[in-house]
Amino acid sequence: MYSQPVDTRDKLIESTRELLWERGYVGTSPKAIQALSGVGQGSMYHHFSGKPELALAALRRSAELLRAEAERSLLGPGTAVERVTGYLRREREVLRGCRIGRMAQDPEVIADPQLRAPLAETFDWLRETITTVLAEGRSRGEVAPDLVPETTAATVLAVVQGGYVLARSADSAEPFRQAVDGLIALISR
Amino acid sequence: MYSQPVDTRDKLIESTRELLWERGYVGTSPKAIQALSGVGQGSMYHHFSGKPELALAALRRSAELLRAEAERSLLGPGTAVERVTGYLRREREVLRGCRIGRMAQDPEVIADPQLRAPLAETFDWLRETITTVLAEGRSRGEVAPDLVPETTAATVLAVVQGGYVLARSADSAEPFRQAVDGLIALISR
Repeated sequence: MYSQPVDTRDKLIESTRELLWERGYVGTSPKAIQALSGVGQGSMYHHFSGKPELALAALRRSAELLRAEAERSLLGPGTAVERVTGYLRREREVLRGCRIGRMAQDPEVIADPQLRAPLAETFDWLRETITTVLAEGRSRGEVAPDLVPETTAATVLAVVQGGYVLARSADSAEPFRQAVDGLIALISR
Repeated sequence: MYSQPVDTRDKLIESTRELLWERGYVGTSPKAIQALSGVGQGSMYHHFSGKPELALAALRRSAELLRAEAERSLLGPGTAVERVTGYLRREREVLRGCRIGRMAQDPEVIADPQLRAPLAETFDWLRETITTVLAEGRSRGEVAPDLVPETTAATVLAVVQGGYVLARSADSAEPFRQAVDGLIALISR
């Protein structure tokens, strides 16, 4: 009796995550969420007040998973350059883009402070984490002494997010790889 | 008699450019284009077969203007690093994002080879142009001899496109500036 609502909630969140990734926020309708999850309209509105609340739950879960994934490379073993390289080169579905970053193009997400929050928090956390990795690496002599950790961390994030944009535009993962290779060469000097 | 159709066509293209930038492709309806342009439905379908053809004309015009803007800094005076810096730092409506790059997040644009073409062509042209600027700069000793023009050019493009994503996520132009500052420091070494 008690596990059923949890499963239904979970199905709704997972279906919303998929639809947001595939179609964006504007392109995702409550009807499509019901169809993909197999959850009826009444049950959906029992668990969530509507699309914004569902999307927020989906974005929060995607942000959590993205963070766990990033931690594996950034907080793992190796020098600062190796860890940042691991983060940049980790396996990605390049042509689908970032589940979080793609939402930034959606005007309705950006106009709603609650929906925008998981985006801002994820990128803040990533920037701070990469800044720490680079600052520690600099103090250990693993990166050049003139490399500025804060701004370089912002550059690392931008290359990933922009790499997705270039890859989707070209319908090829190649521009993503090139942008990452160019950055790794620059920070390895 | 002959100037009227040209004006109407132009109004439709400019209104579509604005709506695509503001709402994306999926979020732009033929009705919204008619409302913003003040052009009636019959007249709209006299000039364009529908939303895809209108969007293509709008994207082609945006690509042309973006290219002219980029040429001013990239093909202007100065060293290679100065020209790339000028391109990265030129005035931009950072929070609105790139008129071309934002379309890459739109599944319907990416799924249509015709609509995707202006995106792919614009980024190809930019990458080739920046590659040439950096290669010439390297041969003149303006950039470090170990800097690879091709991949660095891809990194430059990615930083701009990703900078927009980070700025929109943060509702602040600051992350764009930080990412650009980080990159300029890296290529100036």
